[in-house]
Formats: sequence, structure tokens, C-alpha cells
Amino acid sequence: MKSYIGIDLGGTNVRVAKISEDGEVLAQVKGPSYGMEGPEKVMANIKALVREIPDWQECAGIGIGVPGPVDTAAGTMVLSTNLKGFAGYPLAEEMAKEFGMPAFLDNDANVAGLAEALVGAGKGKRFVFYTTISTGIGGVLVVDGKTVSGKHGFGGEVANIIIDRNREKVNYLNAGAIENEASGTGLKRKYEARKGETIEHTGVVFDRAEAGEELAKECKAEYEKDLGQYFATIACVCDPDVFVLGGGMMKSADKFLPGVIEQYKAMSHTAVHDTPFVLAALEEPGIIGAAMLPKSNGI
Amino acid sequence: MKSYIGIDLGGTNVRVAKISEDGEVLAQVKGPSYGMEGPEKVMANIKALVREIPDWQECAGIGIGVPGPVDTAAGTMVLSTNLKGFAGYPLAEEMAKEFGMPAFLDNDANVAGLAEALVGAGKGKRFVFYTTISTGIGGVLVVDGKTVSGKHGFGGEVANIIIDRNREKVNYLNAGAIENEASGTGLKRKYEARKGETIEHTGVVFDRAEAGEELAKECKAEYEKDLGQYFATIACVCDPDVFVLGGGMMKSADKFLPGVIEQYKAMSHTAVHDTPFVLAALEEPGIIGAAMLPKSNGI
Repeated sequence: MKSYIGIDLGGTNVRVAKISEDGEVLAQVKGPSYGMEGPEKVMANIKALVREIPDWQECAGIGIGVPGPVDTAAGTMVLSTNLKGFAGYPLAEEMAKEFGMPAFLDNDANVAGLAEALVGAGKGKRFVFYTTISTGIGGVLVVDGKTVSGKHGFGGEVANIIIDRNREKVNYLNAGAIENEASGTGLKRKYEARKGETIEHTGVVFDRAEAGEELAKECKAEYEKDLGQYFATIACVCDPDVFVLGGGMMKSADKFLPGVIEQYKAMSHTAVHDTPFVLAALEEPGIIGAAMLPKSNGI
Repeated sequence: MKSYIGIDLGGTNVRVAKISEDGEVLAQVKGPSYGMEGPEKVMANIKALVREIPDWQECAGIGIGVPGPVDTAAGTMVLSTNLKGFAGYPLAEEMAKEFGMPAFLDNDANVAGLAEALVGAGKGKRFVFYTTISTGIGGVLVVDGKTVSGKHGFGGEVANIIIDRNREKVNYLNAGAIENEASGTGLKRKYEARKGETIEHTGVVFDRAEAGEELAKECKAEYEKDLGQYFATIACVCDPDVFVLGGGMMKSADKFLPGVIEQYKAMSHTAVHDTPFVLAALEEPGIIGAAMLPKSNGI
């Protein structure tokens, strides 16, 4: 069976793994990424980690997931807030040259979606839409086992989709952008502002709603409607075979997902009501998805 | 050079053509479609028309475009308002059997987009998003020369995307659905309601806005903002290489498109500001796109 090298390169940590083509992690090493110390240091470190993987030479290709939009054709990052000096740096090319095998680069949310589409909750489906909801909201459409990264690597950068343009503008994103309205951070911010009280985490809102608090119930209802509208919009664009859901907020999925699906149905054609909403199946989609990039590119 | 049979099957008329793989119409016949008289009559008619095409036997495959969502895998229509009895009817299979060559079915807006992606304004691009704006609004994402028709054929059925959920609900679509707000019909309806006067066509709104009428200027500004938001949403989902624009409203494109692009930029990341908005290049995308379906499926 083929295997690939997957690299999950974050601003703080980096993981390198040898992964089989069906998604099994065969070997893994990790360490700090030195993300703010520039490409020379970061690359030397990654290369050393790859050489620590037993029989890395057996692998058919290298895939790298990075935080931020990617020009997948060029194999470079477009923006690199958490990896200093990497915008435009020939990351994929450098790895391919070093190890004598094809190398590919994509955004970390995109590779997580790719992993779910190829070997996770969306396995075997032609059109998979992955959404991750935690402090932010990201996603990706996977068609025929390839991520729709788009012209500038902004495919699936769904955070800025406007859900209700009459909302307050809170940061650089659009007023009413889904990330500000329906991420964990967004729900917490809005509840706290209305309640005039700081809460530890979003679970508190769901607990208080269950206990009957009116404000919590209102916030929860708005949250479900906002997300339902988001998924209804996605369905209009690409009508996926399945919505795969990941990210920290899914720990509370039982509290809000039924309400989201109800709202999704209220805002979409009956024909698409049976589209399943399933939780992400993989524990480590980031590293597995990185390793799936060569496979996705026919290697 | 390969050629294909394209069939543009509408509720009123049907056209059958022999088209080269680079999109040239080599021969064409047309006639009434008998859309409300049931599959038996409709199919006998289409089959006779195909046999009128000189050397139809030379063609490598058949593609059919129909008005309404399609299950592309099954080759059947999901809904068929304008073609009585065709929901679930094995249209593609029947044609394949009759003529001994592979046959494929897709929605008419989807095939128009496919034509533009393969041999029109989006030729050579990996990610093409086609939008048609006339009495309604439709669209389709084309990735690697294949339409993203989706699980239920609703991919690109963008009409129901909510632009502003606080708008009036005017029909079965969502309140604030883009089709009701930014189709030609939508613009005309809203202007007439506010003005208390019936106008002949939407061109009147643009003319009066140019002449300085406040209400017309307001309606035009809202129209541009609504469409700008629509395109910004699409960019978040799939970041296309190009937006291709078709449909009757494009006759007035010079009046409103610059404003739409300005609004698109105001609601999207600077990285995607250079995405071109180009007018559809083909005079007959419906029939050409139908013929491109076999090509798109590797025939």
C-alpha cells in the first residue's frame, strides 16, 4: 500500500507523519515550528523531522497544511500571519527538491476537509462540504477528491459570508459575517454583551437556555437560524452529498445541531432536506489531510 | 475532430444540433417540443429530429439540457414543471439505447455555464462560476470542466440564496432571496411598488437613475449592493478564476456592473478583488453546453 508524508505546519507546532493511503498514521514526530523565526529556521527544522520518520524514502509524495490561504498551483502561501516570511515562499518546491518526490501545499482547513472527504465522514461521496466551527469558521468544498481552493486559495474561506447585513460591524470582517455571528467566539461575545456578564465558554449559553433563561434561548435561536441560513446558502451553491462538521463547537452539537437542521430545512427546497449533517470522523484530520494532498493530485 | 449531439429541450421548443468538440455548430434542426403532452410524444419527436441531422452516427455522444434540477448520475429530471411526466423518466438512458452512444442530462443553466467554461468566456480556467440574470437568477460552478450539479441537481440553484432576510416575502422563495431582489423581475417589481407606476422594462430604472431621479438611484444602488453581496458570497465558497455573466439583464451591464463590482470589492478580501467579471461569450450556450456534456464526462 502507498504511503505519504503529511506535514501539519502551525505557527507554534509542527507535526510530521507517515500515513498510508487509507489514512492510517504509521509514524509521527512533532516539535515546535519556530513560526516567527523565518523560513530558513522553519524549513531546516521540518527537513530534520522528516528524516526522523522511519523509511521516509518509501513515501510517494509530501503534503503540507498551513494556516492561511494558499496558491495551490504555485505551492506558496498567499498570506502568512502565523508563519513569518512565508507569503510567496516556495515551500512545496523546496520540499520536493530536498526529498526528491512531489510536494503539495494547501490551507489547514482545506486539508482537514480533504481528509474527511477521502478517508473520513465523507468517504465515497463526490461532493463533500466540510465546515469547522470553533473560535473561527472555515470550510472547504471537495469535488471528486480535490479541494476547491480557488484562484487565490480563498475557496472555503467562508468566515466572511454575510448572514445578516444589518448586524453590528465588530472587526475587519463584513457586518453580519457568519464567523462573527456563529463561531464560538461570536456566540459568547453576543451573549455576554446582552447579559452584561462574562461567561467561561459557550456551553453556558446552551445550559442556561435548557434551564429556561429567556436571553440564552434567544441567543441560541439566533445562532441556529444564522447557521441554518449558512448551510442553506452552501446548498444553493453546490448541493453537497454531505455536510461534514468539525471544530470545537461540535462538542455541543447535540444542543444546537437539531435546531440548525430545522432552520436549514425552513430555508431550503424540500429536495435537499435529506442531505446528511455528520460529525467529522477523524481525530487528526489536519495531519491526515496533509498526507492526502499527493493522493488528491493523482500521485 | 470529435463531434457531439446537443439537445436543448424546453417546455415549448426543442433544438437538436451536431456540434464539434470546440463548440462549433455543424448542423441544427428545431421544432416544437410538445412539453405538456407527455414523454412518449416528446421522445418520439426528439428521436426523429436527431435522425434529421446529417451523419449523426459520427457523433461520440449525446447531451441534453432541460429546464429544472437533474439527477445527473441517474440521467433523470428531479422536478419537471415545464415537461409533463418527466420527473424520474429515464431520459438519458432512453436516448443512449436508441442511438447506441453514451447520453447525459443536466439542467439548462448548468449546461450554459458548462459551455462558457469549456469553449466560451471561461475557457482554460479551472474554476468558473456562471450566473445568468434575467426574469430569474440561475448559475453553476464548473470545476475542471465538470458542472457541480450536486447530490440532488440543486448545485447552482442560487435563486434562493438569502441576501437580506429582513426583506418582504413575495413568493415561495425565501424572504430576501437573490432572485426576488436582483432579477430583472425583482428590480422591476420593487421600483414599481415604490413609484406606484408600471414601467415597461428595467432599462427605465437605469435611465431614470442616470437622469437623476432619487427613487431610481436608490433602487439601482440597492440592486448593485445585493448583487455585489451575492458575488462576494460565491467568492467565499469557491473563489472562482472568473465570474461569467449571462442572461437578458446583461444588455444593461454597462449601467450596473461597475457598481456591482465596487460593492463586491467592499464586501470581500483584497486578495480576490482582481477576479474578472466577464460577459458570456457564446450566442447559443444552451445547445452548445448540452453537446459538451459527453465531453465533460470524458467521452
